[in-house]
Amino acid sequence: MDPHHRAFDDQLKLLKKKLVHMASLAETMIDKVIAELVERNERLAEKVPEYEDEVNRLQIEIDEIALTLLATQQPVAKDLRFILAASRINSELERIGDLAINITENVHVLARQEPLKPLIDIPRMAEVSRKMVRDSLAAFLGEDALRAQAVIMSDDQVDALKDQILRELITYMISDPRTIERALALIFIARHLERVADHATNIAEDVIYMIQGRDVRHPLTSKDKHLEEEGMETA
Amino acid sequence: MDPHHRAFDDQLKLLKKKLVHMASLAETMIDKVIAELVERNERLAEKVPEYEDEVNRLQIEIDEIALTLLATQQPVAKDLRFILAASRINSELERIGDLAINITENVHVLARQEPLKPLIDIPRMAEVSRKMVRDSLAAFLGEDALRAQAVIMSDDQVDALKDQILRELITYMISDPRTIERALALIFIARHLERVADHATNIAEDVIYMIQGRDVRHPLTSKDKHLEEEGMETA
Repeated sequence: MDPHHRAFDDQLKLLKKKLVHMASLAETMIDKVIAELVERNERLAEKVPEYEDEVNRLQIEIDEIALTLLATQQPVAKDLRFILAASRINSELERIGDLAINITENVHVLARQEPLKPLIDIPRMAEVSRKMVRDSLAAFLGEDALRAQAVIMSDDQVDALKDQILRELITYMISDPRTIERALALIFIARHLERVADHATNIAEDVIYMIQGRDVRHPLTSKDKHLEEEGMETA
Repeated sequence: MDPHHRAFDDQLKLLKKKLVHMASLAETMIDKVIAELVERNERLAEKVPEYEDEVNRLQIEIDEIALTLLATQQPVAKDLRFILAASRINSELERIGDLAINITENVHVLARQEPLKPLIDIPRMAEVSRKMVRDSLAAFLGEDALRAQAVIMSDDQVDALKDQILRELITYMISDPRTIERALALIFIARHLERVADHATNIAEDVIYMIQGRDVRHPLTSKDKHLEEEGMETA
């Protein structure tokens, strides 16, 4: 391998390493925040703001590496798609960190009050969402389209859990208005977790795009597009 | 201008034109959905799913143009930052379209029931959010950092409106449990609009980055970073 290409390769490895670190921080943030919620112990999540700072720093570093690679190495084809995927995954992970911070705020509201109900569905939703984040990164590192596809499939499970949580909490609110504030906080936590799963889904879609050069975000075939460009109606 | 550079320039113009079209569709979607909510007339938003399809098509086309430019023209410096900004703005606009669709679902819930209260704050919030989308695109086209900064400042106004809406609706829910389902639908609409404003803020941050090559997303100075790389504590 020539030295120029080795330097490029080293930078790609660094990009991967930083993304893995960032994903692991984002996952840990969710884990700690949900642990605080379940065990009603604020100390469990006390490091979360520090992790958030670290995630934000990593986002900027990763963008700088990606930009430098694009500007100096002028990659094409698969290398180019890899760097663009890394840059998008970077944004998704930063948003997962933001969501963990949003969850913290709702958890603090709940920590000051009597528990509304035993928490089962929210920790399960958090576990599935975290696994989606972990698996989407594993799919990226292993360039594994099947694993990415499995992440996308899991999103339905998270949506179903969120709907179930919402329905149950509405019955609490209706039967006892004193539960409204706590029920709302739990509803918001469920929605934040749903968005964590959405970001993991976005990462998985980016991975498939990177591997196959095929866009799976919207069900549009190239045939449809060709017809439209011709100004013709699609079936 | 040599023909090669003219072709590059034409592609940049096409990229801009498609982004402006996409932003205008996203804005129209929000406008129509809020009109349906306020006037309780489902026909007002009946074209929204078509606009969504068009937004999704544009997202793929814009990504393809950006990727082709990166691969074939190997732009550097400001042209590179412009194309990367366009690619990010593309994602943000697509998500605004998704949020308009989410709002539609909540609006349909409300259309089937008696109005809960006169709607004033939600249309105002929608108006500010739409203006932020419009202004962030204008800042992008005009490479206007001041205008982008103004968009970022407006986000506080949207957050304040959302908090006010939430507080008011909680009092409705507490005083009459029959209002809970409708109040929740309005709370979700307010949160979706808050996220529209967040995406406009992200666009404005991308614009500043494009113009200044300076990252305004997180308050980290290069001095802090330098110290950290040296393994030293920051103040």
